[in-house]
Amino acid sequence: MENKAEINLARKGIEKLIAYVPGKPVEEVAREYGITEIVKLASNENPLGTSPKALAAMQQILPSVYMYPEGSSPALRERIAANYGIESDMVIFGNGADNILLLIAQAFINEGDEVIIGDPTFSVYETTTRIMGGRVLKVPLKNFTYDLAGIKGKISEKTKIIYICNPNNPTGTIVYQDEVAEFMASVPENCIVVFDEAYAEFAQKTNFPQTIQLVKEQRNVLIVRTFSKVYGLAGVRVGYAVGPKHLLGVLNKVVEPFPVNKVAQAGALGALEDQEFLDEVMRVTEVGKKYLYQEFTKMKMTYAPTFTNFVLVDFKRDAEVITKKLLERGIIIRPGQIWQLPTCARITIGTMAQNEKLIAALKEIIKE
Amino acid sequence: MENKAEINLARKGIEKLIAYVPGKPVEEVAREYGITEIVKLASNENPLGTSPKALAAMQQILPSVYMYPEGSSPALRERIAANYGIESDMVIFGNGADNILLLIAQAFINEGDEVIIGDPTFSVYETTTRIMGGRVLKVPLKNFTYDLAGIKGKISEKTKIIYICNPNNPTGTIVYQDEVAEFMASVPENCIVVFDEAYAEFAQKTNFPQTIQLVKEQRNVLIVRTFSKVYGLAGVRVGYAVGPKHLLGVLNKVVEPFPVNKVAQAGALGALEDQEFLDEVMRVTEVGKKYLYQEFTKMKMTYAPTFTNFVLVDFKRDAEVITKKLLERGIIIRPGQIWQLPTCARITIGTMAQNEKLIAALKEIIKE
Repeated sequence: MENKAEINLARKGIEKLIAYVPGKPVEEVAREYGITEIVKLASNENPLGTSPKALAAMQQILPSVYMYPEGSSPALRERIAANYGIESDMVIFGNGADNILLLIAQAFINEGDEVIIGDPTFSVYETTTRIMGGRVLKVPLKNFTYDLAGIKGKISEKTKIIYICNPNNPTGTIVYQDEVAEFMASVPENCIVVFDEAYAEFAQKTNFPQTIQLVKEQRNVLIVRTFSKVYGLAGVRVGYAVGPKHLLGVLNKVVEPFPVNKVAQAGALGALEDQEFLDEVMRVTEVGKKYLYQEFTKMKMTYAPTFTNFVLVDFKRDAEVITKKLLERGIIIRPGQIWQLPTCARITIGTMAQNEKLIAALKEIIKE
Repeated sequence: MENKAEINLARKGIEKLIAYVPGKPVEEVAREYGITEIVKLASNENPLGTSPKALAAMQQILPSVYMYPEGSSPALRERIAANYGIESDMVIFGNGADNILLLIAQAFINEGDEVIIGDPTFSVYETTTRIMGGRVLKVPLKNFTYDLAGIKGKISEKTKIIYICNPNNPTGTIVYQDEVAEFMASVPENCIVVFDEAYAEFAQKTNFPQTIQLVKEQRNVLIVRTFSKVYGLAGVRVGYAVGPKHLLGVLNKVVEPFPVNKVAQAGALGALEDQEFLDEVMRVTEVGKKYLYQEFTKMKMTYAPTFTNFVLVDFKRDAEVITKKLLERGIIIRPGQIWQLPTCARITIGTMAQNEKLIAALKEIIKE
């Protein structure tokens, strides 16, 4: 009876959706393995925690959480708009960037519309497209990097959205300013390009694409950003999209009344004030990256050069086995099977203490 | 150009969606009117604030918000399931009940499906249905109350979901156990009945429908609940749905990876531990209700008898005018124009100090 009811009642096309596989939460590992000292390098969270200014702001707002938040996060919105030099109605906030990606699908994807993404890339583009009845075309990465020429070759009349994850999750690679400029020249007018820049703060010193210029030129471009990574606020959920008014107007039609909670709004504002913390996050990430590169090389493992706070490493052996052995030692990483990279894993760059614990454990494991 | 782009790109059917109109936030009134002492009776928030146990739990979790929350809110889920005497996979959490309502639409509504709701009722049923391409049939309330016989008369082969807001927002009225039992006997097998019980805690002493029995009997029934009202957690966003496994399985296909933030999960668990606080909320609500009834009657205003923490009052004159004059005095209420009740307003039952301030202001205004 249960299956029958499900088939009868579910919206068309969603039967085959597969649930998102997150990094294992520390609480779960603590329960399952009885370990209390856990190093989580599975979800690209901030190894330094949350900025003290953000924590203070969140603390201060708690007594007023009996009231609904302001729906459009106006103070945060004005702050972000000012940073970009755009008007505040060119920014919209959501319950994390995941929620913004769902909003984009709800606003723009009709049944049968085509969407182009890289492969492997962040899985939420595909899920949200399929929820809305769209069809996903996947263009394999080239050298672990988004293949813009390949994507260009797949564009048709049916193409509604192209997602460019930049830097790409799970590979950490980027496409550059000049490549994007060339690519955008070939994108037709009736097609939206979404740049998911969840990790962009880590890539700013490179020739990273100035996508905000495309927004200012009123191209059909949306930039997606998050407070979950460099800002250390994954647990309170706040992400946003930036785009021209003609697209933001559509997103505003479908946005929920209160997408971002009060604590998140306060925390995000506080985090933006704490440049000192951000600088330290960048410093720790750079130091950790060099250390991990060096140790991976010593162990004859390869990696994709990363512009993020994580590294895709190729263990050259079954990553599920290594992941399990690391788990038994209280270390959580993200094995690559879900991306059809069975010998690879995505590992967050942690504090040096965490990185050293990881490397010591890996050395032990590969000797076994 | 902007309009052209919007027409071309927006998903079919969403052009005419109208944004949710929330109660004015105190922050907004403070900015616009330069008033700092504001009494907000517009969003049915908890006049006693948040339970001290919930506040303590939220405080304690702040240092770990750099990590993602557990996606399915497992501790909270087990606690709610135990309260209902059901298995934990019969409960699903969202970013407020609004988010749960969107999830339901995403999971079950195909283009062209019909949905039946009361009129006036909570506006989100209509918005979420239309986002997913469904068609909404509205059955006028009878004597400010959901008309189940009228709804029964509208059921057709195309009916996918029936929303019953019980108690109804914005009228505060309820349908009873026996009425619901009779109604459910006539609902066809391929139709889902959603009981939105956001205010049910306030109605428990009456012959309130035991909808959980319908869930246990594996009927196509979903119960929607929230922590925004009696639990005083509107600002952190946590709502949930309870239903049989064959429906929950479908909701789980479309749920976002991290719908409920860490602070909300902790706060909700803390709030559930604080019976003393809940008892005091109920007491204050009862006392305030009697006082408001009495004062409205003195002013020759009528009201719908309420089973919630708000009262729909008929001022017998233009409610927009009164609302504006109250705003100038720092009091926020919700005028009835949006529900086609232009002489009515929905007013939250506040603390006695707030209720008295409201009544004193109303007396002044109607004398003008």
